[in-house]
Amino acid sequence: MNSNTDEIIEKLDSGEIRLHEIEKYAEDANQATDIRRKFIEEKTNTQLEHIGKYSIDMTLTAQKNIENQIGTIQVPVGVAGPVIINTEEETIETYVPMATTEGALLASVNRGCSVIRKSEGCSVSILNNQMTRAPVIKTKNIHDANKLKIWIEEHFNEIKEVAESTTNHGKLIKIDPIAIVGHFVYPRFVYETGDSMGMNMVTIATQEAINYIEQENDIHVIALSGNFCVDKKPSALNMIEGRGKSIVAEVTVPKEIVEKTLKTTPDAVVEVNYAKNLVGSAISGSYGYNAHFANMIAAVFLACGQDPAHVVEGSIGITTAETVEGDLYFSVTIPDLPVATVGGGTRLETATESLNIMDVKGSGNVNKFASIVASIVLAGELSLVGALAAGHLARAHKELGR
Amino acid sequence: MNSNTDEIIEKLDSGEIRLHEIEKYAEDANQATDIRRKFIEEKTNTQLEHIGKYSIDMTLTAQKNIENQIGTIQVPVGVAGPVIINTEEETIETYVPMATTEGALLASVNRGCSVIRKSEGCSVSILNNQMTRAPVIKTKNIHDANKLKIWIEEHFNEIKEVAESTTNHGKLIKIDPIAIVGHFVYPRFVYETGDSMGMNMVTIATQEAINYIEQENDIHVIALSGNFCVDKKPSALNMIEGRGKSIVAEVTVPKEIVEKTLKTTPDAVVEVNYAKNLVGSAISGSYGYNAHFANMIAAVFLACGQDPAHVVEGSIGITTAETVEGDLYFSVTIPDLPVATVGGGTRLETATESLNIMDVKGSGNVNKFASIVASIVLAGELSLVGALAAGHLARAHKELGR
Amino acid sequence: MNSNTDEIIEKLDSGEIRLHEIEKYAEDANQATDIRRKFIEEKTNTQLEHIGKYSIDMTLTAQKNIENQIGTIQVPVGVAGPVIINTEEETIETYVPMATTEGALLASVNRGCSVIRKSEGCSVSILNNQMTRAPVIKTKNIHDANKLKIWIEEHFNEIKEVAESTTNHGKLIKIDPIAIVGHFVYPRFVYETGDSMGMNMVTIATQEAINYIEQENDIHVIALSGNFCVDKKPSALNMIEGRGKSIVAEVTVPKEIVEKTLKTTPDAVVEVNYAKNLVGSAISGSYGYNAHFANMIAAVFLACGQDPAHVVEGSIGITTAETVEGDLYFSVTIPDLPVATVGGGTRLETATESLNIMDVKGSGNVNKFASIVASIVLAGELSLVGALAAGHLARAHKELGR
Amino acid sequence: MNSNTDEIIEKLDSGEIRLHEIEKYAEDANQATDIRRKFIEEKTNTQLEHIGKYSIDMTLTAQKNIENQIGTIQVPVGVAGPVIINTEEETIETYVPMATTEGALLASVNRGCSVIRKSEGCSVSILNNQMTRAPVIKTKNIHDANKLKIWIEEHFNEIKEVAESTTNHGKLIKIDPIAIVGHFVYPRFVYETGDSMGMNMVTIATQEAINYIEQENDIHVIALSGNFCVDKKPSALNMIEGRGKSIVAEVTVPKEIVEKTLKTTPDAVVEVNYAKNLVGSAISGSYGYNAHFANMIAAVFLACGQDPAHVVEGSIGITTAETVEGDLYFSVTIPDLPVATVGGGTRLETATESLNIMDVKGSGNVNKFASIVASIVLAGELSLVGALAAGHLARAHKELGR
Repeated sequence: MNSNTDEIIEKLDSGEIRLHEIEKYAEDANQATDIRRKFIEEKTNTQLEHIGKYSIDMTLTAQKNIENQIGTIQVPVGVAGPVIINTEEETIETYVPMATTEGALLASVNRGCSVIRKSEGCSVSILNNQMTRAPVIKTKNIHDANKLKIWIEEHFNEIKEVAESTTNHGKLIKIDPIAIVGHFVYPRFVYETGDSMGMNMVTIATQEAINYIEQENDIHVIALSGNFCVDKKPSALNMIEGRGKSIVAEVTVPKEIVEKTLKTTPDAVVEVNYAKNLVGSAISGSYGYNAHFANMIAAVFLACGQDPAHVVEGSIGITTAETVEGDLYFSVTIPDLPVATVGGGTRLETATESLNIMDVKGSGNVNKFASIVASIVLAGELSLVGALAAGHLARAHKELGR
Repeated sequence: MNSNTDEIIEKLDSGEIRLHEIEKYAEDANQATDIRRKFIEEKTNTQLEHIGKYSIDMTLTAQKNIENQIGTIQVPVGVAGPVIINTEEETIETYVPMATTEGALLASVNRGCSVIRKSEGCSVSILNNQMTRAPVIKTKNIHDANKLKIWIEEHFNEIKEVAESTTNHGKLIKIDPIAIVGHFVYPRFVYETGDSMGMNMVTIATQEAINYIEQENDIHVIALSGNFCVDKKPSALNMIEGRGKSIVAEVTVPKEIVEKTLKTTPDAVVEVNYAKNLVGSAISGSYGYNAHFANMIAAVFLACGQDPAHVVEGSIGITTAETVEGDLYFSVTIPDLPVATVGGGTRLETATESLNIMDVKGSGNVNKFASIVASIVLAGELSLVGALAAGHLARAHKELGR
Repeated sequence: MNSNTDEIIEKLDSGEIRLHEIEKYAEDANQATDIRRKFIEEKTNTQLEHIGKYSIDMTLTAQKNIENQIGTIQVPVGVAGPVIINTEEETIETYVPMATTEGALLASVNRGCSVIRKSEGCSVSILNNQMTRAPVIKTKNIHDANKLKIWIEEHFNEIKEVAESTTNHGKLIKIDPIAIVGHFVYPRFVYETGDSMGMNMVTIATQEAINYIEQENDIHVIALSGNFCVDKKPSALNMIEGRGKSIVAEVTVPKEIVEKTLKTTPDAVVEVNYAKNLVGSAISGSYGYNAHFANMIAAVFLACGQDPAHVVEGSIGITTAETVEGDLYFSVTIPDLPVATVGGGTRLETATESLNIMDVKGSGNVNKFASIVASIVLAGELSLVGALAAGHLARAHKELGR
Repeated sequence: MNSNTDEIIEKLDSGEIRLHEIEKYAEDANQATDIRRKFIEEKTNTQLEHIGKYSIDMTLTAQKNIENQIGTIQVPVGVAGPVIINTEEETIETYVPMATTEGALLASVNRGCSVIRKSEGCSVSILNNQMTRAPVIKTKNIHDANKLKIWIEEHFNEIKEVAESTTNHGKLIKIDPIAIVGHFVYPRFVYETGDSMGMNMVTIATQEAINYIEQENDIHVIALSGNFCVDKKPSALNMIEGRGKSIVAEVTVPKEIVEKTLKTTPDAVVEVNYAKNLVGSAISGSYGYNAHFANMIAAVFLACGQDPAHVVEGSIGITTAETVEGDLYFSVTIPDLPVATVGGGTRLETATESLNIMDVKGSGNVNKFASIVASIVLAGELSLVGALAAGHLARAHKELGR
């Protein structure tokens, strides 16, 4: 800490400088980070030793990813796998990084990967790739609301041109559905966004589109997002229509593997899945007809710089289990998984390294990455449902603790 | 790397040692971590430089929080606030750590905190504190199912005793509701779990209770969790009944503050909230009648060692906005927020430091911590809904990027 | 038509008498009905011949069940059955009246009854009996909201006394859950209402209770119903907590009967139920995990003077199918079925006759009636799912038409 | 009763003739009805006097609308209105028949009609007209499932031709969405069905389409309906995508009319709607963000020969209320209303008369009829929400009884 540091801290104390203004006075973002942390330490009478021991470069990070930064948190990361995946195009074999503090999770997923390997891999299909933004517009009356809906449908090409003028990678695929409630209109803009998750891209593109629509119609835009998107909130809409990547993964596990590795039977797995993931979730009014999608998605997302708030959307989906000629057919359907291999948190140093482990960093890789996430969800579901079938859950927790 | 390291890596290569067995051969967990990372680097032809630059001690972590670890990921953490909170007992003023890679989030929450400060603080009430586990049990027929339900109701005290014998802190409050579907029975065990999030505790206690019930009745336990809990999945059940902490926070923002700080009007905020968070979410079939609870919860959870998969549950809830004598009444209702100040990820070094910033580490602090999370959710909602009302969203994204 | 009639019609024409005031000038309700019909015939240039050919006595009807009446509509009614039902107390064998205009429905239900008879009857259990009303109350702030919740919990006995003072048959069982959203409080009053459906009873009782609560607390009652009841609207709340009667019915159909009568196999029925009623309803965001509960409930309700708007609630529920040692286990769970054998439409002449067919008219019969409805739902589900399994649906429609 | 009658009843008694076979031995359906009723009277020891006093002709009815008929039930029918409706094309003024046994309902709706008249009529827009059927198809694996989805999209024109070959009036508009869960595929066939409700039509057309798809692909059709339709079950899917007619109706009520006729204020109506229909339904996990759509829809449906099981779908929807320059803006959004003016129950005598009152019987009238239903829903909502705002609910029930 040099004199400059002390001086800035004094000014923070006196209120002359505000916490988010340190960057203006510090040499660079790294120094600003240290000054801010020191100030917080003093103010809160704490030692933020480990938060301060980061290795990443804050320069770009403080511009793109955070404000008021004081350092980094560290979350342990491990590897599961390798998992073997048959997509419609290729076979992938890869280790998968997962960051978590939930004991037993990685071990459990790892067991699932082992089952998948012994079953000649799982299969994955990507059904859809769409990022959405849905403004809410107020019209003068419902006749006007209906007219606006028709106008948007008839001027799709013009709107598309305007929206796409703001982006190199985003493509406006459709505006559908267009919901109307009273005199409010909610057009759902659906884009393909390439390898980026795309929320920022579609927000800007939709703003431009809305400016154009507002110019041509006698309407009032209430908000750029009217929650018919639906971003970071659980919804039937996204379960039905999909958002981000919509993915299905399946594996057929030979009876002997179920017995030997999962210590149970295909029939028992089918019954647990039926009574728990289907009937149990039904009676709960849940959109998560699964055991714990969220655990696997959160751990991979954290490792790979994805947005952890999007775990909310990833948690929606259905696990199915059936017996096929004595073997176990097992699938996961994940309709709403926003993922990226460029932009956002993926540029951070540890995220980049995590993506590199799977060779999916950067452009052209997002479908591969999405497929890997789905395979890990499959592995985790298979392992937990298997463990429940075998009555192992409580014991596993006792042994591995949390 | 010493010779021991090379030797182990060779054995990993040859398959003699498996990836999760390194701990048996290494000096300690820290060395095991390094060996495993080195092996993965070789296998995947990557440099895991930053993942390897961690400062936390892996010894305990590898026992409690993760398996197959190769290091840590780093996520930038900043501070928002201070926020001022009036609980039913005390007034809290605190900075709040948030770990995120979403540019503009912290700045936005910070603005909300500023509005709250200028409004003489927000109020928070904790309505409920309950962690749940609901097994699924198969009976021979529906008459037996109904009998089992009645038996459980009549033997609550015995079951409570058995369940609580496994824990020092957990209290079984009720078994309610007990759902029946065909011959399946789903008793929802509801516990108070003190300062720990409690999933592990209630899993073990419920296993014991179920053993007792199984012993006394002619039934078959299909799974220790029948998804009527509902853990880490979005559900109407948890929205209605609550899970974890159920919290409400509110603030009344004077008209002038809305105009000056949020650059909009109470009426405009009310209209955005109505058209977006209520009507827009309704037409989406969403359980998130809010703008972005998940963002704030994810960022605080990440900073503080909470389970990021629980963001799924936290995303459920309702934001309301009304005008009261010209001022803005604004509230958030968060029915399902699992949080902890002991156990799980809270013991990790950076999480401990984050909790220390708010002085909520350890026993006796969980309600305070929950109140702070709710206040930050309120701040984030207020700021985003305000920004939408002011038409600022797209511009904010353009400037601060992501 | 006498001169009096012509005179009244003239005055209706001139606006001197309004349509709902005819009763004041006519000899009795039957004459008023005829005058009103004649007036409408003239005004709309129609012949309402059949609407006028009713046999019921309008005197009481016009006081209790309708206003502005012009006659009756006629809906064809048939009988299904007999169905055989094993309740927890007795065995019932009965024909069941169903009023419908949907060709093939009665034939299909009849086939289901035949399967049930050949399977030694079905079993029925009534799990709950509760009618609800939930006001919405505004408090000054959330601390007050929480206080009100606690006050209500602590004063349950007093509130119960006040509520029950308005009724001879209603019993206030609990006030639970009490939801809070911002400063709004939604206490759910749960009553047992004997043989009447009870909505009117619980509305009056809750009004009285609310008057008392308002008197003792500084609150504002916004509405006597805050939709947390939930009356005549589909809801997860009622699926989870139950409303009206909560009923489960099941039958085990021997393999040979499935093959001979349903022309399919237990495995095929199980697969249809799984892919359609569980997975298909899941991906639709539906609370109806069944094939067509609503059809059977509507037809029996119509025949028996139940409220057809309550079919909405009855449509919620789950059908399950499993194979048990080669035979077919089949169940329906109906959590939310408001029914009555006294009051409301049950007093009408044809409704009384319909209820008499099953010997369930009047007091002491509501559980028996509810059990019969459930058995008919079971019969209808079994038949339709069986028909789908046999690929018969389209053909059945072609032959029997609609 | 002639000797023939006695003879048949004897044979029914002996089991020689079965209940549904009477038609084969009787002179016509009317006689068969009487014989069957007499048999049931004897078997159940009842007098079915009023059920036997029907005026309709059973000949066609017994072929098209019911089996095992024993007569008719009578439900009192009254008229509400006139209501004044501005559609996008014309102004309608009409009385509306409603059959009900719920005292106070007609009076309440009538009051709403009066408010609408004093407000220069309401406006109605029909947004969509679509009847749906969604089979569930099993493929060999998810890659095949995805291929089938693409195949269907690419062969839409061929499929459309095949489907439409079965019908004169039905048009296949789209197959969308096509949901995939594991190896199951749920293509949602969306048709326009003209003036008929269309379920029968789309079932037959979809069967034909599915035959074609099955012929061209290596798949297995599990069921002609996979519950992704969604017929007669409450669902988010239909709320979002619409089914039957999707309709919006609105009225702006001058402040003075609110005060004079509804005895309350625009602000109070807005607050009740907000706290009850939006927030209250949200916290209930309900798809009915309204007060009682089902009541009005059930009563008009019953009068007009519509399918009462479709009230389930009609109950879904949203009521909004806002103040606009001191006046009350009030709207209802009904996304899922299956209605018909030809076919099904509309051909019955009393239904025909009811439809004639509104001049909507037969072809070319379905949009007009749908608009009238929506206006009556609006009237009923306005009246009840107004009554709640005025604190009148309990009193109304006490006076008019049930």
